[in-house]
Amino acid sequence: MKRRVVFTIGLVLLSGLATAAAQVRQEIQFPDVPGYETLKCDFHMHTVFSDGLVWPDVRVYEAWREGLDVIAITDHIEYQPHQQDLPTKHNRPHELAANPARERDILLIKGAEVTRDTPPGHHNAIFLSDIDPLDTDDFYAVFEQAQRQQAFVFWNHPGWKGPELGRWGEHQTTLLARKQLHGIEVCNANDYYAQAHQYAVEKNLVMLGDSDIHHPSREGERTARNHRTLTLVFAKEKTIDAIREALFAGRTAVWYQNQLIGREPELAAMFTAAVQVEPPHHRAGDTVWVKVENRCELDIELERIGPGRPARIHLPARACYLLRIKAPAKEQPEGLSYRALNFLIGPDQPLPVRLVIPPP
Amino acid sequence: MKRRVVFTIGLVLLSGLATAAAQVRQEIQFPDVPGYETLKCDFHMHTVFSDGLVWPDVRVYEAWREGLDVIAITDHIEYQPHQQDLPTKHNRPHELAANPARERDILLIKGAEVTRDTPPGHHNAIFLSDIDPLDTDDFYAVFEQAQRQQAFVFWNHPGWKGPELGRWGEHQTTLLARKQLHGIEVCNANDYYAQAHQYAVEKNLVMLGDSDIHHPSREGERTARNHRTLTLVFAKEKTIDAIREALFAGRTAVWYQNQLIGREPELAAMFTAAVQVEPPHHRAGDTVWVKVENRCELDIELERIGPGRPARIHLPARACYLLRIKAPAKEQPEGLSYRALNFLIGPDQPLPVRLVIPPP
Amino acid sequence: MKRRVVFTIGLVLLSGLATAAAQVRQEIQFPDVPGYETLKCDFHMHTVFSDGLVWPDVRVYEAWREGLDVIAITDHIEYQPHQQDLPTKHNRPHELAANPARERDILLIKGAEVTRDTPPGHHNAIFLSDIDPLDTDDFYAVFEQAQRQQAFVFWNHPGWKGPELGRWGEHQTTLLARKQLHGIEVCNANDYYAQAHQYAVEKNLVMLGDSDIHHPSREGERTARNHRTLTLVFAKEKTIDAIREALFAGRTAVWYQNQLIGREPELAAMFTAAVQVEPPHHRAGDTVWVKVENRCELDIELERIGPGRPARIHLPARACYLLRIKAPAKEQPEGLSYRALNFLIGPDQPLPVRLVIPPP
Amino acid sequence: MKRRVVFTIGLVLLSGLATAAAQVRQEIQFPDVPGYETLKCDFHMHTVFSDGLVWPDVRVYEAWREGLDVIAITDHIEYQPHQQDLPTKHNRPHELAANPARERDILLIKGAEVTRDTPPGHHNAIFLSDIDPLDTDDFYAVFEQAQRQQAFVFWNHPGWKGPELGRWGEHQTTLLARKQLHGIEVCNANDYYAQAHQYAVEKNLVMLGDSDIHHPSREGERTARNHRTLTLVFAKEKTIDAIREALFAGRTAVWYQNQLIGREPELAAMFTAAVQVEPPHHRAGDTVWVKVENRCELDIELERIGPGRPARIHLPARACYLLRIKAPAKEQPEGLSYRALNFLIGPDQPLPVRLVIPPP
Repeated sequence: MKRRVVFTIGLVLLSGLATAAAQVRQEIQFPDVPGYETLKCDFHMHTVFSDGLVWPDVRVYEAWREGLDVIAITDHIEYQPHQQDLPTKHNRPHELAANPARERDILLIKGAEVTRDTPPGHHNAIFLSDIDPLDTDDFYAVFEQAQRQQAFVFWNHPGWKGPELGRWGEHQTTLLARKQLHGIEVCNANDYYAQAHQYAVEKNLVMLGDSDIHHPSREGERTARNHRTLTLVFAKEKTIDAIREALFAGRTAVWYQNQLIGREPELAAMFTAAVQVEPPHHRAGDTVWVKVENRCELDIELERIGPGRPARIHLPARACYLLRIKAPAKEQPEGLSYRALNFLIGPDQPLPVRLVIPPP
Repeated sequence: MKRRVVFTIGLVLLSGLATAAAQVRQEIQFPDVPGYETLKCDFHMHTVFSDGLVWPDVRVYEAWREGLDVIAITDHIEYQPHQQDLPTKHNRPHELAANPARERDILLIKGAEVTRDTPPGHHNAIFLSDIDPLDTDDFYAVFEQAQRQQAFVFWNHPGWKGPELGRWGEHQTTLLARKQLHGIEVCNANDYYAQAHQYAVEKNLVMLGDSDIHHPSREGERTARNHRTLTLVFAKEKTIDAIREALFAGRTAVWYQNQLIGREPELAAMFTAAVQVEPPHHRAGDTVWVKVENRCELDIELERIGPGRPARIHLPARACYLLRIKAPAKEQPEGLSYRALNFLIGPDQPLPVRLVIPPP
Repeated sequence: MKRRVVFTIGLVLLSGLATAAAQVRQEIQFPDVPGYETLKCDFHMHTVFSDGLVWPDVRVYEAWREGLDVIAITDHIEYQPHQQDLPTKHNRPHELAANPARERDILLIKGAEVTRDTPPGHHNAIFLSDIDPLDTDDFYAVFEQAQRQQAFVFWNHPGWKGPELGRWGEHQTTLLARKQLHGIEVCNANDYYAQAHQYAVEKNLVMLGDSDIHHPSREGERTARNHRTLTLVFAKEKTIDAIREALFAGRTAVWYQNQLIGREPELAAMFTAAVQVEPPHHRAGDTVWVKVENRCELDIELERIGPGRPARIHLPARACYLLRIKAPAKEQPEGLSYRALNFLIGPDQPLPVRLVIPPP
Repeated sequence: MKRRVVFTIGLVLLSGLATAAAQVRQEIQFPDVPGYETLKCDFHMHTVFSDGLVWPDVRVYEAWREGLDVIAITDHIEYQPHQQDLPTKHNRPHELAANPARERDILLIKGAEVTRDTPPGHHNAIFLSDIDPLDTDDFYAVFEQAQRQQAFVFWNHPGWKGPELGRWGEHQTTLLARKQLHGIEVCNANDYYAQAHQYAVEKNLVMLGDSDIHHPSREGERTARNHRTLTLVFAKEKTIDAIREALFAGRTAVWYQNQLIGREPELAAMFTAAVQVEPPHHRAGDTVWVKVENRCELDIELERIGPGRPARIHLPARACYLLRIKAPAKEQPEGLSYRALNFLIGPDQPLPVRLVIPPP
């Protein structure tokens, strides 16, 4: 009887603390693109239910605070180092995080990490309805089961043990042929895999970037160069179904260490949405002054194609830049051709862009 | 001959450095209000042409970087401590800053500080066409001249020598009667004058807040609580004439140490524009969850009027807040009555506001 | 067989990530005082083994990174909200954190929170050898047991339910008489309890300040005003025994929101150790210039006692301040009397200090 | 009469503002090395008296705040773009800055920039007693004069117009032969000149790095990677004479974008002074844990020489790092050989270092 009273008090205490810590959200600024909402997603993270170090709801509080829209908790199925204290329950982390997610308008996707020796390495299956059937020793049976549940499957951190062990192998060939492999992590936490990037381009795999976070997130330090690795998904709306549709259609871009990595159409659309060139506000002789606004989180680096000036433009995140260019008085200043050095449409392949100066 | 070449090189060097330092601008986020643009203005600043420590163009570079739209350089007319090295030229600072201002789309207003013993103290006249005629020993003649030039005149830092010397005096009475005094600095740099605030309310003087900056600006450190003191002007458009119209009409708000100080209509309009309440995104029983977005630079502090909860809401600048409130299932959640503790419509008088929850 | 291989790989992965996140430590700058080391301690924190949200080792990684020397994990004995997934094991969090602590040279003290309705409220017992015997319904039996284990016991967050319920009660009287209550949290997380502070002074209870952290720590944001609430312990050496000795002797100071709260001897010693006044480096007439260095984490605020100048001195943390004072040419400048406004030796009672200018 | 009163008031105002802005100093942390004080020096900066944008005293206020010990104001002799408003007075900036420097214990060196077309480019002469005699069209006569005044002369930003125009030329050969050229800027503001670095090594020229600052300093943003470019001088004491002695003896290191550039003896001494390895605090099997403290402003990057581990060590500025290494139980752990990637003793030539683990 006494103890029950104590419990109630405790609950109040906890929820008070949780509320205080989790109330404020800093949006991640990547604008929507024509036809799609730009959703900030992390499809790979762990909790105490495998080898992560936080209770599942923490992943939701972090997502809220850090401006994410969508997360998938993907604990290891086979690797359960806390088992002695916390018996294995594959579906439990999702269950524990579901209500906190609803309360914060975070979409929560049920997922799991299929954890095998390398090769074949680790794979995530997301949009699962029940993880238990995937807990089996037969490698291919796991992916049969994932397919039956209409999961989206991707190869995790292919190069984490070096490029040699990260090479495309027979397992991947088989899964791809069976339409049981759909995407690939080009980036994971602080790693970029050029080789995986190349596979994504050649084999038309969907590009993903995830945090693979095990520790608590240290979000206090977000800057253009120091942020959570994540995937932008261009979805028709903010629903689980629309995210699934967008993923299978490949409409993603990876945000990694001040770079966006993706296909040409998505990156071009994001550049156009993010970089706003205003009409010239002043002219003196054949020189005009123009404001350029960068509405996204990237410190964008531009390099001139050809001899014109400026040769380099540095557009800091969420800031406005003063551009001074030559433009003969009677003509409209033409568009300026640049390479967006941190918009990558392939390994070492920056996106070509044009800054078009609107008429005054 | 040689020397001329040298000069040219030097010019290139200087402009290169200036460009690098002054290219990037961080906007100050206060949204427009219905019918008006919200212009960020500083009407009081100094250069080496009186007792300031920077060349006049620096005031423009600072304004650009720090997101200001409008500045007035207001060097002391009578106080010229650099005279021995730099002979007095009252109109020269404006002249030197004019081109840099045009290039950066900063509106530059010509002004001057009439600098007398206290009382009567210092007064700024802005929108002047020629400062020289104001350089005269006859106190009242100065303001006659300012009126002839259709200047807007305000009393600077009334309480800087303490409330005793900052009391309303016969000089102010005379100037006000002659319509030669229009505004008053409620805030100057790091000082707030409650007494001046009271005068503004009682005598219907336009409220101003300015930096009165003499040193270079240390803008690297802007936060909600540590920012340049300035005046928001609600103008029909971004032109000198529209600013003058808005000033004479009294449409201002002072941004000072995480507070907005002004008249009720302007503060209410800004609160409504800045605080966006979204429809509830989740309901459980009679509890609903609602996102509240703060689109301005203020860390807004709300205190509940009456017994409801939450008793206090802290809405950080440019962030989103998760509000959990009780709302019976069938009824629309009502508006919630709060005091906006850092929106002051008089000394110690916070603005009453309502958070209205839109239907889902 | 296969699975074992997988486990090994996982371990490598986890330890790699843990290492990367936990390698760097930022010391907390409070200098040692004569005769004692100044240890930074947090004696109140939670893990998933009660209502906290992190695995126990996380508390060690946080302590390392944030510059702590000593922590006690003090999970609730009676309040076990994760019990359904994680069966109760009172001694387990200490066991899981022990090795990570040894590797990081963090002293780990075994503790527990005795969690009852208010009054009598919650109490921490630390330096326990076995927590299980304290898991009993008989309130006084718990503290008998703690005493048998030579624990140091303190009253947690006395005012967390308001001053009415935080009043000194018969339970505390009884425990104190039996020498089973030794200290009191004057500060807990973001709360300061003036009433508890008064009790500490009157009843000679040891003053403590703790984080009571449940969520992951958000250490990315430490500033003079935004830091973990903790207890400085002035110990003869950095060992468990020396900490126990220092606690029972009452040699503590609480660091809370840019204040130090403690007894007069400890605060005076810390002020003297932290504030270094240099000999004057320049004289002009009867004015001398002196450098004052603040070697601690506090932004120290001084207010002159009597009429001299400066009336206020603001010494930012870990910075040097330029003091200009009047000092007749032939005499040694005297010491200057100030109140250290954020060194509190009682509620609203600042420490009196003297700045003594050494001879040149 | 009236006006005089006004002036006095103004002076009070100005000095009040100046004091408030300039009181607090943040030391730059580079420890002293055996036998020498480590002085933080900037030997190249401008004021309104040439093409700079601040009054001379501002350079002193900046130096104080930013932790510098020594500055030389070096306005262009020949390039005087403000001449129309501010008549040329070469010795005046030094005169105006002298008192503020004394009050802040900043050593102020009189200097000037000899500003010619490139080649031969710009050269600084410092420790001058009178600049006027250097204002002559005859290039070599300038340096004769500088030599007569026992000046230290260095070549400024040799590569600022590209490596072609930055090549060693006949002017430099002649000056060097006459002992009228002593040093070279390897770094200037945001530029590093590999070619100049090579000349310094080959011709035994003293290496310098300076801010060449024209605008106000934006010190609010100092980080390991974003700081003022400057020269560490290893001097027997903090006096003008000792700095001169140290410069002619070549005891310098350039701090530039998180790198130290210098000769081997100075860099090795600084590394040893800055990086403190503690005795192991824990052993488990053949693994020991060791704390390594970095007491300087550099984020130090170490790369293992040979196969041992860790292969890379990142020691953030003013932080402590946890090192885990293999060390057989009976033997003392040996020293670990690394390259300090950001201690450069020649172009692309990192300093080899050893981390020696002291006995427990």
